[in-house]
Amino acid sequence: MTTETPNTVTELATRARLAATVLANAHRDIKDAALHAMADALDSRTGEILDANAADVDAARAAGTPEAIIDRLALSAARVATIAQSLRDTARLADPVGDVVRGSTLANGLEVRQIRVPFGVIGMIYEARPNVTVDAAGLCLKSGNAVLLRGSSSAFRSNSAIVAALREAVDKTGLPADAIQLVDASTRDTVRELMTARGLVDVLIPRGGGDLIRSVVDGSTVPVIETGVGNCHVYVDAGADLEMALEILLNAKTSRPSVCNAAESLLVHASIAPAFLALALPALDTAGVTVHGSPDVVSAGAAVGVTVPAATDDDFGREYLSLDLSARVVESVDEAVDHIRRYGTGHSETIVTRSLERAREFTAAVDAAVVLVNASSRFVDGGEFGYGAEIGISTQKLHARGPMGLAELTSTKYVVIGTGQTR
Amino acid sequence: MTTETPNTVTELATRARLAATVLANAHRDIKDAALHAMADALDSRTGEILDANAADVDAARAAGTPEAIIDRLALSAARVATIAQSLRDTARLADPVGDVVRGSTLANGLEVRQIRVPFGVIGMIYEARPNVTVDAAGLCLKSGNAVLLRGSSSAFRSNSAIVAALREAVDKTGLPADAIQLVDASTRDTVRELMTARGLVDVLIPRGGGDLIRSVVDGSTVPVIETGVGNCHVYVDAGADLEMALEILLNAKTSRPSVCNAAESLLVHASIAPAFLALALPALDTAGVTVHGSPDVVSAGAAVGVTVPAATDDDFGREYLSLDLSARVVESVDEAVDHIRRYGTGHSETIVTRSLERAREFTAAVDAAVVLVNASSRFVDGGEFGYGAEIGISTQKLHARGPMGLAELTSTKYVVIGTGQTR
Repeated sequence: MTTETPNTVTELATRARLAATVLANAHRDIKDAALHAMADALDSRTGEILDANAADVDAARAAGTPEAIIDRLALSAARVATIAQSLRDTARLADPVGDVVRGSTLANGLEVRQIRVPFGVIGMIYEARPNVTVDAAGLCLKSGNAVLLRGSSSAFRSNSAIVAALREAVDKTGLPADAIQLVDASTRDTVRELMTARGLVDVLIPRGGGDLIRSVVDGSTVPVIETGVGNCHVYVDAGADLEMALEILLNAKTSRPSVCNAAESLLVHASIAPAFLALALPALDTAGVTVHGSPDVVSAGAAVGVTVPAATDDDFGREYLSLDLSARVVESVDEAVDHIRRYGTGHSETIVTRSLERAREFTAAVDAAVVLVNASSRFVDGGEFGYGAEIGISTQKLHARGPMGLAELTSTKYVVIGTGQTR
Repeated sequence: MTTETPNTVTELATRARLAATVLANAHRDIKDAALHAMADALDSRTGEILDANAADVDAARAAGTPEAIIDRLALSAARVATIAQSLRDTARLADPVGDVVRGSTLANGLEVRQIRVPFGVIGMIYEARPNVTVDAAGLCLKSGNAVLLRGSSSAFRSNSAIVAALREAVDKTGLPADAIQLVDASTRDTVRELMTARGLVDVLIPRGGGDLIRSVVDGSTVPVIETGVGNCHVYVDAGADLEMALEILLNAKTSRPSVCNAAESLLVHASIAPAFLALALPALDTAGVTVHGSPDVVSAGAAVGVTVPAATDDDFGREYLSLDLSARVVESVDEAVDHIRRYGTGHSETIVTRSLERAREFTAAVDAAVVLVNASSRFVDGGEFGYGAEIGISTQKLHARGPMGLAELTSTKYVVIGTGQTR
């Protein structure tokens, strides 16, 4: 903890812009060397980082923070090692900067190339987990961007220790330390300042709960990439393979209920509902899942001795992030699509079907970042898709949609080379 | 003109969303048929459109509107024919919808494809020119989007006649007429309603003057693609081919001064300034261009008998859109780049040079949508780049940067096909 007056966001952003001009043209060699130095610094300063984290955890516990949140905040030597390794993995990824997206020679001889360039300065606003600090710093540096990190106040000691280690490593490599800067988390003012730093900050990426994301989207004059809220549905179609449907549903719901790509709602075609619910409701019950059902699902539960509370409209609109699942019987793919249009958040939507026609219908009609056929939505992840680490999953349509890797952290620039052409 | 109560933006947008679900999955055949029908309708209803336009022009003239603006508003039979032809040209362009942007089969057998899909509903907010109404309607329809057109009140009669013709043609083809809707232009309220229609309108594209664009960018909760303000520089490097530099400068400044890709500012390297300015200042004077210069440019003018008013800081920051040009002598490429960083709008920046090293330095360091070497910035145009008609030139970094064609009017969606995979 420093005793100096915290810098204003404007001061930090101005320094970040200067750093960004250096980073934008840094070769891959030096960026990768910086990533390795950052990883090594986390390893060698693990003790210091764990001490800072223990202080954060103690303070959070004293403040009565729920253990589920403490769990996301707490670091261990093993977790720090894993986080450090993720920086080395990022170093191995291809550099997106300079990629030619498209290019041609025009009839008049002009050579036109559209190439990937960094955004410049990226602002991250996020909650709790200190690993986001490292992931964001690594991905932004690799993609040639400077980053302003506005984590939560509860993780400020941990984030300060981590960022101090990362900055020292970047500096040693010969890149500007101001490529990575931590924003004061003791006041909400810094969030507001980031949101209105248009011209200084090129893009804001909020990561966290729905309320955080909503407030950033609504209040920001800086362009925002919206991430993460996932009210994800599994639709079990008429004639689906019941065993496959059950496995996908259980995996999507229970393998990690707290993440955005977990299933939150089940839709079952009426023709298959009795058979599927007789199988699924006891299995979900055994897995500890509470199903909140429409009247026919409540009845199906009664028939197999499973208590199913009645679902309210609010249930269908909720991202539980817990072992709860809303469930409804529908008469057709159309009705499933309509339900998803009404309640979905445009994240990841799944159909389990044997019908090619209905698979096509569902994938064409559902408006979401990812539409899956016969697969668990838990695969919706930058790592799983082969993009290396991800900075978030975009649920907006502008710029990036779905898991965001390094390419999504870049803009483009046209370079046109001529020999004196005029028009 | 209708006597009904105008529909609210929410009503129009709700209808547009319904139309968008049909358009999103319409085949190219029917979309191209609609574009041809739209062109034919403009041809066959030219008289009606010209009558409406004459009423707009009369009203504008009576209100004391400057002739330059009248000129942008006024249609003729020939102009309507040209506009109609542009729809037929759009029909010939490839359909971006369904394009696979990237795709692979993962190690676990999941087939992942990222495909282009329409945004859904696009809101256009623009000034004066009725041809924008047709261009936007055509490009949005071809890219599978419904469009809400909020033109200026001075063109409302013209736009109403045009949109009536277009809607009838779309309807006859079997696509929903609500793919193209005109928003009431009699009140600023409709602009505000469009700006806050988050969830109903997917993206807003403002086209027009800097004030219009600024107000939309600042006030909108709907994602915005910023277009068009161009304070474009021509930097004449040490050792440049003076004749080539002069031709590029004259072309960029004078071939169409009112457009955003016209040059507004000249930077000349000190070592070449005496020779170049002795050549350029008389030539610019002959072409009717007033140069607003730094002190050394004022002196250079005096030496060749050309009056050069002294440039203020305000001159360097201005997009004149007229036969005016600010001019300054710089000591290095770095100083040129710094000047552009300070005053540029990130549109199109040009270097005239013989040096490969300085061409690389300039293209790498200048942060703009388009950087040109030895070519006129007047080529920065979707048509010239081979993208067919363009809906605007983006000067932002998110989503689209530079001339925007059909691909820039789309988002993407991941489709993942499995055989029961769980994680």
